[in-house]
Amino acid sequence: MQQLTVNLDDRSYPIHIGSNLLGRVELLAPHIAGRQVCIVTDDTVAPLYLQRLCQTLADYSVLPVILPTGEAFKNWSTLQQIFDALLGARHDRRTTLIALGGGVIGDMTGFAAACYQRGVDFIQIPTTLLSQVDSSVGGKTGINHPAGKNMIGAFYQPKAVLIDTDSLRTLPEREVSAGLAEIIKYGLIRDIEFLDWLEQNMQALRALQPELVTEAIARSCAIKAEVVAADEREGGVRAILNLGHTFGHAIEAHQGYGTWLHGEAVGAGMIMALQLSRTLGWLTPEEERRCTQLVAAAGLPVTPPADMAAEDFTRLMAVDKKVLDGQLRLVLLKRLGEAVVTADFDGKALRSVLAAGDE
Amino acid sequence: MQQLTVNLDDRSYPIHIGSNLLGRVELLAPHIAGRQVCIVTDDTVAPLYLQRLCQTLADYSVLPVILPTGEAFKNWSTLQQIFDALLGARHDRRTTLIALGGGVIGDMTGFAAACYQRGVDFIQIPTTLLSQVDSSVGGKTGINHPAGKNMIGAFYQPKAVLIDTDSLRTLPEREVSAGLAEIIKYGLIRDIEFLDWLEQNMQALRALQPELVTEAIARSCAIKAEVVAADEREGGVRAILNLGHTFGHAIEAHQGYGTWLHGEAVGAGMIMALQLSRTLGWLTPEEERRCTQLVAAAGLPVTPPADMAAEDFTRLMAVDKKVLDGQLRLVLLKRLGEAVVTADFDGKALRSVLAAGDE
Repeated sequence: MQQLTVNLDDRSYPIHIGSNLLGRVELLAPHIAGRQVCIVTDDTVAPLYLQRLCQTLADYSVLPVILPTGEAFKNWSTLQQIFDALLGARHDRRTTLIALGGGVIGDMTGFAAACYQRGVDFIQIPTTLLSQVDSSVGGKTGINHPAGKNMIGAFYQPKAVLIDTDSLRTLPEREVSAGLAEIIKYGLIRDIEFLDWLEQNMQALRALQPELVTEAIARSCAIKAEVVAADEREGGVRAILNLGHTFGHAIEAHQGYGTWLHGEAVGAGMIMALQLSRTLGWLTPEEERRCTQLVAAAGLPVTPPADMAAEDFTRLMAVDKKVLDGQLRLVLLKRLGEAVVTADFDGKALRSVLAAGDE
Repeated sequence: MQQLTVNLDDRSYPIHIGSNLLGRVELLAPHIAGRQVCIVTDDTVAPLYLQRLCQTLADYSVLPVILPTGEAFKNWSTLQQIFDALLGARHDRRTTLIALGGGVIGDMTGFAAACYQRGVDFIQIPTTLLSQVDSSVGGKTGINHPAGKNMIGAFYQPKAVLIDTDSLRTLPEREVSAGLAEIIKYGLIRDIEFLDWLEQNMQALRALQPELVTEAIARSCAIKAEVVAADEREGGVRAILNLGHTFGHAIEAHQGYGTWLHGEAVGAGMIMALQLSRTLGWLTPEEERRCTQLVAAAGLPVTPPADMAAEDFTRLMAVDKKVLDGQLRLVLLKRLGEAVVTADFDGKALRSVLAAGDE
């Protein structure tokens, strides 16, 4: 087992990564204040891991809440089901919520914890590769609005993150690739050696070779923890974690949430950010090609949906949370391994990247 | 004009109290980061003060959102109207929300600010006496759930509070009394001299004598600011601000939100807390009588609704946010001017107080 810490003063918390963590009550108990626990999961994950976690928590009063699966349900009315269950079972301020599932479950459970009685504790147990390396760490929680993804939410940190790598065994191949998109992102924005390592090990990672997967998760979480500790509420540097996400969110919104996996949209979105960076002279064509190959090797799309026009991107990107005083800002690569958040790019260069799909 | 400060480190903020503050842009401008401002108000307050505030903010891009009036609309679907307006007008993370109205508007606007794009700035401009002395200060925000009041929300501090005492001129007499309930509360829990002062000046306060009203608001806000600074997230002492509220919330829920004004329910609820404190031997019958007279002199009910039985209270109080691990805790008076939060009271004594309405 590996252990990292997210350093946020009195809101610091541990990340445990390893095999068979779901059965270890001693990792959970220090973070459960009262007797009441509410496990929030979905109807895909529940049959696989809910009973196991309930057994681990046999000494507590456990309320399971099983939500419908998928990004399409990441909305207020699903969130309301959590509140209804908590109030129906009279869970008080000392209750602890546990998110057992992927990013959608983690984001919704975290937001429910942030809002229930103005804030109760929660623990993340991410079961997908994507949520293990991304959304379970850092305290971004929320739901979607028809006009944009994650538009309603809170910065609210978990008390602990438990990453049981065994849960990846049941993950569809497509979702493994989606997780690899975020892992590649960490190399691109911050760690060129990690990028080399990923190029060497991509096939073994897709095959879920245990030590390599644990290593990739730990390196990704370490980079994320470092960036979050430097800028919890995304006033500055934290935004670099969004490489490819502004384009990616537009793709997800255009296709209808859940059609493209988040990681797939981020994969194609990162390529668009790389293209723009190259157009601006910040990356060489060779570097762009190399990164595109890596994204493709992870089993991810490297072009946006064929039916998506430049004006679709323009319209959907206008509501991005990084827009300030009407001006779009993007995460681009100043060089390989170094990301910047900038509004300082040529509009024509952006349009040519957006229009590439129209050709 | 009087000015106080709520001391919360980097979240500290000023409270300005005085006449004609709605016209003073220099009090607002330091707290507005960008060019976008969204004024949230209701259809009672909008005809009275919205135009005036828009004129004051003529240099900004102002988006007004007018919600239906009343506690019955303090729910998710009304909140959603704020999000829809903000996203429709493409307000970004640098937008500032301004709550112009009573407690319902303040609580909803604050919660909307807490959640919109995971948190934007907001300013409180409370227009009712109750919200001026209570909900506009301290950062409690939220909405109701069918199973309980303020069950969904956040602790989220405003950047500033502007209390324009001129807005009380249009306030119905019944709402003046409701505000006086919270003002009396501060004397009961923390300041026996203030209680004496209120007894001497109650009729002039009901007549809204300007200097006296300003003084009463400033003393109330000073006590609240002190308690909030000591315990922002209600881990301990802050709960004393809820004197009468556990009973009061049960009354509001039973009658249907909005039937009794919050301050009216708190008035009757405080008397129930005083009765229980007297039954426990902590207040003399004479002190109980004196306080009951003061509440009555403010124009408030001193008994719960006639049709409300003891079991109605028991059921509705079981979901109070002060319940911990299944145990009800109440704010009681150890002596006049000193409140405690305690689970240490005789169940029989409580039942006799709850049953008093049944007789």
